[in-house]
Amino acid sequence: MRAVVIHQKMDLRIDEREISPPGPGEVQVRLAVGGICGSDLHYYQHGGFGTVRLKEPMILGHEVSGHIAALGEGVSGLSMGDLVAISPSRPCGHCRYCASGMRNQCLNMRFYGSAMPFPHIQGAFRELLNCDAAQCVPAAGLSPGEAALAEPFSVILHAARQAGDLMGGRVLVTGCGPIGVLAIAEARRAGAIEIVATDIADAALTLAGRLGADRTINVASDPDALESYLPNKGYFDAMFECSGSAAALAQGMAGVRPRGVVVQVGLGGDMKVPVQLLTAKELRLHGTFRFHEEFPLAVEFMRSGLVDLKPMISHTLALDRAVEAFDLAGDRSQAMKVQIDFN
Amino acid sequence: MRAVVIHQKMDLRIDEREISPPGPGEVQVRLAVGGICGSDLHYYQHGGFGTVRLKEPMILGHEVSGHIAALGEGVSGLSMGDLVAISPSRPCGHCRYCASGMRNQCLNMRFYGSAMPFPHIQGAFRELLNCDAAQCVPAAGLSPGEAALAEPFSVILHAARQAGDLMGGRVLVTGCGPIGVLAIAEARRAGAIEIVATDIADAALTLAGRLGADRTINVASDPDALESYLPNKGYFDAMFECSGSAAALAQGMAGVRPRGVVVQVGLGGDMKVPVQLLTAKELRLHGTFRFHEEFPLAVEFMRSGLVDLKPMISHTLALDRAVEAFDLAGDRSQAMKVQIDFN
Amino acid sequence: MRAVVIHQKMDLRIDEREISPPGPGEVQVRLAVGGICGSDLHYYQHGGFGTVRLKEPMILGHEVSGHIAALGEGVSGLSMGDLVAISPSRPCGHCRYCASGMRNQCLNMRFYGSAMPFPHIQGAFRELLNCDAAQCVPAAGLSPGEAALAEPFSVILHAARQAGDLMGGRVLVTGCGPIGVLAIAEARRAGAIEIVATDIADAALTLAGRLGADRTINVASDPDALESYLPNKGYFDAMFECSGSAAALAQGMAGVRPRGVVVQVGLGGDMKVPVQLLTAKELRLHGTFRFHEEFPLAVEFMRSGLVDLKPMISHTLALDRAVEAFDLAGDRSQAMKVQIDFN
Amino acid sequence: MRAVVIHQKMDLRIDEREISPPGPGEVQVRLAVGGICGSDLHYYQHGGFGTVRLKEPMILGHEVSGHIAALGEGVSGLSMGDLVAISPSRPCGHCRYCASGMRNQCLNMRFYGSAMPFPHIQGAFRELLNCDAAQCVPAAGLSPGEAALAEPFSVILHAARQAGDLMGGRVLVTGCGPIGVLAIAEARRAGAIEIVATDIADAALTLAGRLGADRTINVASDPDALESYLPNKGYFDAMFECSGSAAALAQGMAGVRPRGVVVQVGLGGDMKVPVQLLTAKELRLHGTFRFHEEFPLAVEFMRSGLVDLKPMISHTLALDRAVEAFDLAGDRSQAMKVQIDFN
Repeated sequence: MRAVVIHQKMDLRIDEREISPPGPGEVQVRLAVGGICGSDLHYYQHGGFGTVRLKEPMILGHEVSGHIAALGEGVSGLSMGDLVAISPSRPCGHCRYCASGMRNQCLNMRFYGSAMPFPHIQGAFRELLNCDAAQCVPAAGLSPGEAALAEPFSVILHAARQAGDLMGGRVLVTGCGPIGVLAIAEARRAGAIEIVATDIADAALTLAGRLGADRTINVASDPDALESYLPNKGYFDAMFECSGSAAALAQGMAGVRPRGVVVQVGLGGDMKVPVQLLTAKELRLHGTFRFHEEFPLAVEFMRSGLVDLKPMISHTLALDRAVEAFDLAGDRSQAMKVQIDFN
Repeated sequence: MRAVVIHQKMDLRIDEREISPPGPGEVQVRLAVGGICGSDLHYYQHGGFGTVRLKEPMILGHEVSGHIAALGEGVSGLSMGDLVAISPSRPCGHCRYCASGMRNQCLNMRFYGSAMPFPHIQGAFRELLNCDAAQCVPAAGLSPGEAALAEPFSVILHAARQAGDLMGGRVLVTGCGPIGVLAIAEARRAGAIEIVATDIADAALTLAGRLGADRTINVASDPDALESYLPNKGYFDAMFECSGSAAALAQGMAGVRPRGVVVQVGLGGDMKVPVQLLTAKELRLHGTFRFHEEFPLAVEFMRSGLVDLKPMISHTLALDRAVEAFDLAGDRSQAMKVQIDFN
Repeated sequence: MRAVVIHQKMDLRIDEREISPPGPGEVQVRLAVGGICGSDLHYYQHGGFGTVRLKEPMILGHEVSGHIAALGEGVSGLSMGDLVAISPSRPCGHCRYCASGMRNQCLNMRFYGSAMPFPHIQGAFRELLNCDAAQCVPAAGLSPGEAALAEPFSVILHAARQAGDLMGGRVLVTGCGPIGVLAIAEARRAGAIEIVATDIADAALTLAGRLGADRTINVASDPDALESYLPNKGYFDAMFECSGSAAALAQGMAGVRPRGVVVQVGLGGDMKVPVQLLTAKELRLHGTFRFHEEFPLAVEFMRSGLVDLKPMISHTLALDRAVEAFDLAGDRSQAMKVQIDFN
Repeated sequence: MRAVVIHQKMDLRIDEREISPPGPGEVQVRLAVGGICGSDLHYYQHGGFGTVRLKEPMILGHEVSGHIAALGEGVSGLSMGDLVAISPSRPCGHCRYCASGMRNQCLNMRFYGSAMPFPHIQGAFRELLNCDAAQCVPAAGLSPGEAALAEPFSVILHAARQAGDLMGGRVLVTGCGPIGVLAIAEARRAGAIEIVATDIADAALTLAGRLGADRTINVASDPDALESYLPNKGYFDAMFECSGSAAALAQGMAGVRPRGVVVQVGLGGDMKVPVQLLTAKELRLHGTFRFHEEFPLAVEFMRSGLVDLKPMISHTLALDRAVEAFDLAGDRSQAMKVQIDFN
């Protein structure tokens, strides 16, 4: 069985690995599609991010779909050949946060493809994967590529919970990478009445418009465009900061109305934040981190047609072109979501 | 009639002013006590703060109490001689924020002693003051000094609303100036089960203990004491940041548990914020600004004995020693709340 | 100009009325479609409901759409011929409830077709209608019949706010008349993962299935079917009671899990309520009444395709067959939403 | 060891029971005081309530305090002789409700003195009681009688959570038995600005005034007094229904403002509820049931002086007068909280 393994910065290989049969309660999935996430890209380009550093080879990947290839003892509700989206979230179920309903904050989380503990948690970019049946959500009716979008879409469903009710709201999305365009799609589904999106890449903004932005602004070429939202202390009820840029956060906060909410989705280290705007306008700046309960909903919302995320898959490359896929994923001028086809 | 007027940085004078009789719906109050707030001090020491700058002489002061000295036409419910606490919050009542229940965010606010618009909004440190009857809250049973604490206590009542339910919560307060110790008193009233307070001045911490802190930490002399709260992603359910210090904010955020709340009460400009903690722990960083509806409650809570704020009045000086009072208010080694006696 | 006028119980006539040109800020609308609501039907069948009684002839109707036929002075943003949905909600804007953001609770509400005050508030079933431009929401892309559904859909959007976040929730809808099937459509849009609907009419249940119910139960022919949801204190996170039947409320409450919510949408007088279930399971029984802010959202959600409500229009009859339309609307075995075509 | 045992309706005895030493993690408590609750009284007067019926002899009692008399293996944090309040709430910790933070809704709850499961859960009116150390909350500084009030006060702390923020609110309390007067005390602590209380017994109303009601109304002798609160759709922001009377609920609902909350604390079976008021005013009728997390807070709030509940203890009788105590507890003309002294 082949797997996509990061050995160190810029050293990505397709290695051979062994696999045992699925244990009790597990299934074996023949992977169909795996999407490349920003964190995968960080391991590839930089060997990690912040204080998280690669210390041993690690299989990458956590946005995956596949077909059931074997059923472990005691598994019911899944059949051979079923297309499933696979949740990479594996909380322990018994720590203080699991016990109080915050599973995504589990103290012993084993999320696919994370270098945070050591030994690292190996990822899911592999031709065959044994996982708990409970991680698998049937995705009949979706393409394997769409099914693999359930993971990043779950991130945004969880983020949107932090924002609260968006029905009738005016929403600003800063940063239109894959997470940003998903925020646009979700804001639209949740009933936002007006969505403005910003980025510095025209290709990203074009897709933002397709997924539901009413207005797109290239803040590189049109740096003053957000100023029209500043009078009377701001315009937007909610903002999703998806760029990880301190400048985007600061500019956006100026455009949010008093008591509005800013959900910080983009990852960043220390950032300079205009705290005087936060206090004077009584903004609510809310962090969000991964997801857990939202995963089956992400599948369901695609299946029922409430969102159509297919346009965001910009490229699909075969497994043996994985390195090329990673290079492409890093080029925002042409790529949005890049996926690897494991078949 | 004499008034306490700031002419420019470090140039504070007691000037003579005229006063007309109270108009319809107004009362004339003979001022009893005025407390010196941090913003008064900024005008005195620095001529302003941030982009807010003195451009003309301005009467300072907005934490005031007094006795009714004359009743304008049509005023009912107040009698000659009544002790009243006077709210400095004067929203327009018809802008978009007033109309939607956010009066403290009024676009045309005329808050006593503010240099923000020009001409400046003159303050309330004056022997006689004409104000709307609706600004006056009867304070029988309180001392004039306590009545003058209604204003800063209102700031904290409003701040506590941002935190949500504190019943049974563990609360961290960083910065134990007047606003910080009021946060401690309010957290206690609201049912917090454990309160930890930090500062760099021992005198402030001693008072923090008197107003309800279970543990006080001098982070200057004992910089590692907060580390015991860091394991398992943090300990506190809520934090009130009352110092305006980026370091205090960052240290405190490390001690707040996942999905906890941080209310930023202290004023600051741009601050370096550990955004990776905010996202990873899904913290809610909430600004708060002044108050409006809370003012009568502040009086009521003192009158009913739910809080005892008297210990925080450290000094009371006669009007002709106003400059001395301001100098004292700037010395944290000995002063907490310094008040001017106008009688 | 002709109008549909109720004179007394069972005495519905098409009368001639005069109309003046639109005043400043008003438009004149040539009515396209008017839907018959349950309250219209009550006036027709019973001369009123509860203590609300007809005392003079009243034009019926409040679910209407039409085309702009004339523009009053100062109107902008609307053009001759535009299809608009017209909100019947006309709050005063200055009473205590309007001032605190509860416009649907306005003390001086002039809602079309209401016999509550005297003289009655005349309704909108008329060939020409002068109304405030602000009541008109452009509905390009919708059929006039769909546009006329904005009003009942607004009722449900407001009701759903009382329920809170439905994302991932399991929802019970009791009563599948027009309001019930709209509740189903909205629960689906809002992300409910499972919807069970009950009624006593098979025709209604068939439509409930088309609008999104996962399971439909005829509680007349299958009275025990809800019992499977009773173990472990109940199953549903939320319930929309849309029948106005005390039995449906009681049965449904038994199936709602502890701390679940029951939104009472159906109108009823005094009802016997199983209060022991309410206390023991800590249910939240929430009333809901009309709407205000939700009206433009109702139009938008249809336009953007988040809901497809067309299937619920069961009959459309020309104006001169209005009496027949009312008789039909009262026959649940064949009718869902009956609309009158005014062209 | 003696215990207060109900054998059947009106057959209350003081029986001898054996007791073993405390097991690991347990303590043995020498009971000090036990308060008689309404449910104890129901078993005594009627042999049960609703469908809950006595089927075997059962020790009554769940409002108890005592002194630590023996420490089981592994117990820390408690010392011989400590006065403790003992929580009667014993959830399983692993059912679906315990796992999701609703411990008071535990499917396997073993609450002291409940005939709900069979064999019944024996109560705590006994000279010696073995219980988990975790059930004991140190109550130093309180009298044993006050410590025994922690249990009913917990009921009200939990009920108040359903109401949401009461700060500045106007509150109606219907029914001024022990639970009603505790609601008054808690509303005061939580910052209510005005509290009106109703009952049909003057003695109860007198105590209601002592615990914080601003106005008391005897609805038997002054049935029209509530009418002054009806204009403009109602006056009260929140209502605690503590009588279990359908008439009190209906009258009170008429006095609650639109979108106000009614917490149903009093137990009742089916009740006729004015559902038209609930829908037209969009009221929120919220059930509440027992408590769990609130128990230590109840002790803390008494200890810190936020509430003074001592006045509500009307009678204390020695154990051998237990039958007399129960008869007295049933006489509202003279008794409020009746407690048994076990020493």
